[in-house]
Amino acid sequence: MKELPIHIQLQPESGRTLYEQIYEYIRNEIRSGHLLRNEKLPSARFLAEYLQVSRTTVDMAYDQLVTEGYVEARPRRGYFVNAFEELCALDEAPKSRAASPDASGPASARYDFSPTAIDMRFFPYATWKKITKNILVDANSQMFSLGEPQGDLQLRTTICRYLHGSRGVSCAPEQIVVGAGNDYLLLLLEKILGRHVHVAMENPTYVRAYRIFRSCAYPVSLIPMDENGMRTDRLRRTDAQVAYVMPSHQYPTGISMPIGRRMELLKWASEKPERYLIEDDYDSEFRYRGKPLPSLQASDTDGKVVYIGTFSKAIAPAIRVSYMVLPYPLLAKYREECGFYSSTVSRIDQTILNEFIRDGYFERYLNKMRKRYREKHDLLLDELRDFETDFRISGNSAGLHMILTDRRGRSEEELARLAAEADVKVYRMRDFRMRDMESESAAVKKQERERDTEDAMLILGYGGLTAEEIREGVGRLAAAWGIDRGG
Amino acid sequence: MKELPIHIQLQPESGRTLYEQIYEYIRNEIRSGHLLRNEKLPSARFLAEYLQVSRTTVDMAYDQLVTEGYVEARPRRGYFVNAFEELCALDEAPKSRAASPDASGPASARYDFSPTAIDMRFFPYATWKKITKNILVDANSQMFSLGEPQGDLQLRTTICRYLHGSRGVSCAPEQIVVGAGNDYLLLLLEKILGRHVHVAMENPTYVRAYRIFRSCAYPVSLIPMDENGMRTDRLRRTDAQVAYVMPSHQYPTGISMPIGRRMELLKWASEKPERYLIEDDYDSEFRYRGKPLPSLQASDTDGKVVYIGTFSKAIAPAIRVSYMVLPYPLLAKYREECGFYSSTVSRIDQTILNEFIRDGYFERYLNKMRKRYREKHDLLLDELRDFETDFRISGNSAGLHMILTDRRGRSEEELARLAAEADVKVYRMRDFRMRDMESESAAVKKQERERDTEDAMLILGYGGLTAEEIREGVGRLAAAWGIDRGG
Repeated sequence: MKELPIHIQLQPESGRTLYEQIYEYIRNEIRSGHLLRNEKLPSARFLAEYLQVSRTTVDMAYDQLVTEGYVEARPRRGYFVNAFEELCALDEAPKSRAASPDASGPASARYDFSPTAIDMRFFPYATWKKITKNILVDANSQMFSLGEPQGDLQLRTTICRYLHGSRGVSCAPEQIVVGAGNDYLLLLLEKILGRHVHVAMENPTYVRAYRIFRSCAYPVSLIPMDENGMRTDRLRRTDAQVAYVMPSHQYPTGISMPIGRRMELLKWASEKPERYLIEDDYDSEFRYRGKPLPSLQASDTDGKVVYIGTFSKAIAPAIRVSYMVLPYPLLAKYREECGFYSSTVSRIDQTILNEFIRDGYFERYLNKMRKRYREKHDLLLDELRDFETDFRISGNSAGLHMILTDRRGRSEEELARLAAEADVKVYRMRDFRMRDMESESAAVKKQERERDTEDAMLILGYGGLTAEEIREGVGRLAAAWGIDRGG
Repeated sequence: MKELPIHIQLQPESGRTLYEQIYEYIRNEIRSGHLLRNEKLPSARFLAEYLQVSRTTVDMAYDQLVTEGYVEARPRRGYFVNAFEELCALDEAPKSRAASPDASGPASARYDFSPTAIDMRFFPYATWKKITKNILVDANSQMFSLGEPQGDLQLRTTICRYLHGSRGVSCAPEQIVVGAGNDYLLLLLEKILGRHVHVAMENPTYVRAYRIFRSCAYPVSLIPMDENGMRTDRLRRTDAQVAYVMPSHQYPTGISMPIGRRMELLKWASEKPERYLIEDDYDSEFRYRGKPLPSLQASDTDGKVVYIGTFSKAIAPAIRVSYMVLPYPLLAKYREECGFYSSTVSRIDQTILNEFIRDGYFERYLNKMRKRYREKHDLLLDELRDFETDFRISGNSAGLHMILTDRRGRSEEELARLAAEADVKVYRMRDFRMRDMESESAAVKKQERERDTEDAMLILGYGGLTAEEIREGVGRLAAAWGIDRGG
């Protein structure tokens, strides 16, 4: 069945020796992945006959490949391709990592307080597998067909119901658009909102969203925050048409926006027909203090809020299902401009997720994870009790991370460096502070000065760490930062 | 566990009766999907007590809901929500269908010669389930984590190998970007190519791609075709920077572009650094006549071709996995501008697909489907033998559809209408002909005149029909169009 994997067109008049041509061809096939690791090359005798060249010519080419490490000669078995694809992968990986907007500081550390890591150890794999298996048993060709562009009605109805019950979101299934991840939904939103939309964002903010807006060539105004979140007085000084906010638990500051500020934002939005608010409710499932806050969308009576949520955080990053709730004017525009875009989530995946939520597994898993994360949250807070002299601790009422604000005039760089030397990774707030487009000119220096005088803030995520790792990590931080742990 | 699904805040001073307020609240909860089909409402007695209103008030509200069909009274069991979500779905569905760019003519017919339908009856569901099951057995938390933005290296390596072997595509795994469907990849390509890119397309063309380019606000020049495909002399009269073509089997005309025209296109692209060709190789797997044509990308020595392919057609529409091969200059731009966009395909799905291809199931399935589709193709051609006096038959060397060109001066409308009256759906070429932006002004009339004098062309797809349906459908067409089947 298998064809000879060598299709060289030798060019005798090319001025290059035949041995070089054979060597280069095979090397390129290996480098480009067309010849795979452990693939057997034809024997030298066979290839020589096939190409009508001398045996010595092929031997020289093979020897060169062996010398350079592309090919391995196994005694009495022949020539085999070495694991070059893995070398390629190693070449590639650092680029991908560098492209991650959340990366900062050292590449990796033994104790990584990443604010985006989650704990997958308690995920009900068995349940997920069972649902998948049952669905595939019943699966008919319908399941393998292309679903509705907005997502399957059953899943949208389930999401609608869940959002109503847990977040007070008021919507109909027809307002929901399901898509493969928040990034995709923001791209779709660009098509709905149109071009040249001036966006306002909190600063610091979610870097990925900022980069997406910038890649849409949207002008972005960065609005400073006070303890209640985005300052609406500063928002009003801009020409922004859309404000992107995270009112439940701002990323990364952890600020929860109180109702007064929410009403100010809604009022701002309601003053002009083209104004909208994008509410990214990325981690609202986890809240440890006080009553669950309803969503901003729940207070919206004028159809001004686009609500975005995801299952990547509450279930698993591999579950590429996010959703947005469109107010009716934007729903009409979606249908006009984007109604033809095919759904990016397979029906099989939509069906699995629907049953996982509908049959109560999601709620049970959330309850379990709330408990687990609360334990980690309480442990971290407890471990940090001796840090209070040197740091203010905040943003800890919800989500999976908290903020340490330095009281002793040290810089984020210094603190992060000291931590890294102890093999602990903490995250610097300045990596989440964007620089204003407008301030590239004269105001830039003033802003830079302001930034330099701002207190150093470090972000500590705990979602992905075990209790033991939290204890050890904080112990190392205390030693590195000279915290007196006598207390 | 379950809470009372009624949270009415009655407003006695609102000027509206309490009965109206209760009725409207429940109606809205049903319309918005918060109360689901078959959900039991609280008994009238209980709700009256709970809301501290008279029993009569609640009875009146419930009666109104029953009268209007929102709620059903089941004797001795109580009040239950009717299947309103399905009514909503019915409301929604026609809009979704209308938004489909490929829809034309009557909404449905008994014998639908759709050019996009495929045959899923031979899909190896059992194999797919087995692979899924095995993967989930071994699944670890790694599988549920977010993969690389471009797609998993293993899958990219497998795709690379498949494309090299079957389509002569020359690329490395690092050049491949995996995404959830062609529509998504075109959105990503917009970010890579930049704004205000002038695109040239064949006319008629793939309507969905046209709409995506237009929704990116790209100026689009529609280039007429001759029997060899896109006319490069006409392309050269435009300022187009990118040409989108389907050289293997143009959709919908079925034209295969010969090597001479391909070289002209490649030459055009190589003349300026910013010029590129997008090759959409949507159905190249199925070819019935002559040698398989290699891809345009295979002839490209200057890195000028973006190759796009999909598994939605060759495997199943639900498999939301497409891929594009980026030439190196665009790969660099991708990494700079879009490297941070998360993958839209879950790792689980990528792993299933990888094993399906890697272990030879894909090739076996393709071989089987080539045989099945060739049988349908031959049958349709045979059944159409008496049509040759009235129609020229073309575009039948590949893919899943062919073209009938009228020789007797009838219009596409008339022929499609006569078919519809016999419960047969055929597709009109004019629904795939786009109107040039430039021609909106003066030239529009000329073009309209040209269009009117063009021969009527009808598209007959056979992928989704059984042999019996093809026979019966053609028989009905012969009767409807007055074909003499004596021969």
